[in-house]
Amino acid sequence: MRKLLACNLLMWIAMPLGAQMAERSRAEIETFNRQFAEATRQMDNTAIVELWAEDGISLLPATKPIVGKAAIQAFMESVTSQFKGARMERFELQCSGIEVTGDMASEWCVEHQVVHLSDSKPPFDGRGHMLLVLRRGADGKWRLLREMWNQAEAE
Amino acid sequence: MRKLLACNLLMWIAMPLGAQMAERSRAEIETFNRQFAEATRQMDNTAIVELWAEDGISLLPATKPIVGKAAIQAFMESVTSQFKGARMERFELQCSGIEVTGDMASEWCVEHQVVHLSDSKPPFDGRGHMLLVLRRGADGKWRLLREMWNQAEAE
Repeated sequence: MRKLLACNLLMWIAMPLGAQMAERSRAEIETFNRQFAEATRQMDNTAIVELWAEDGISLLPATKPIVGKAAIQAFMESVTSQFKGARMERFELQCSGIEVTGDMASEWCVEHQVVHLSDSKPPFDGRGHMLLVLRRGADGKWRLLREMWNQAEAE
Repeated sequence: MRKLLACNLLMWIAMPLGAQMAERSRAEIETFNRQFAEATRQMDNTAIVELWAEDGISLLPATKPIVGKAAIQAFMESVTSQFKGARMERFELQCSGIEVTGDMASEWCVEHQVVHLSDSKPPFDGRGHMLLVLRRGADGKWRLLREMWNQAEAE
């Protein structure tokens, strides 16, 4: 174990600074992804909105572009109020291809959600793809700058 | 006119280097957008594929992610062969919000296409949104790294 740690440390020291920073950014974005998935799983709109940049834009199918954090918050609240009693039974998010340049990053994700709507209806079971663009703010935190979602292929 | 030119030149000199580079990148991306729109208008698959990065990814609704320039080319050719005789009557592309950090950029677009399919069918008239991520290659050219499309809202 100690040998492994020492080996990792040596690799870290040997890495050029740019690669170390990109490595660190990727780890930060993986943390962002876990927070994003957990907030979605909990249907916690406040926590989700917290992960958006002030000038964030959400592009959903057959929907006018939702521009700015305040509009995104209002949209989420309107969805929640239309589905009172809904509960996320399952939410899986698998992101790939994190690309980082300085304070901008991009990745794409596959998501699977099972939402309990009401006791009288079968749960909604849907799969989608997402393309995300993230920006690191002056406070060092990565936030969503752009998000687009579309339906995944049939299984 | 000469005064205006001198004034523009002075503004250019007064701009910090980072802002000048971002300004130049934005102009380059606007050129990319015009080339992309023109190639789509001409349904020129070779010219479109030329605008993609080797490791580009296209995310279309209800479609498996199309990964890599070769797969994107094959996908486009399969679509073209299914719609022999199709002709783009109209293609408009309006992109907004170009964000540049070094060699990575992002923008989102609204597109409107009218495609003549055959003399016996009415033309296809569709509108969509796109989220694009671009990367500048070692040769200085911007290319598509990621593209996602979804249907726009009804008019």
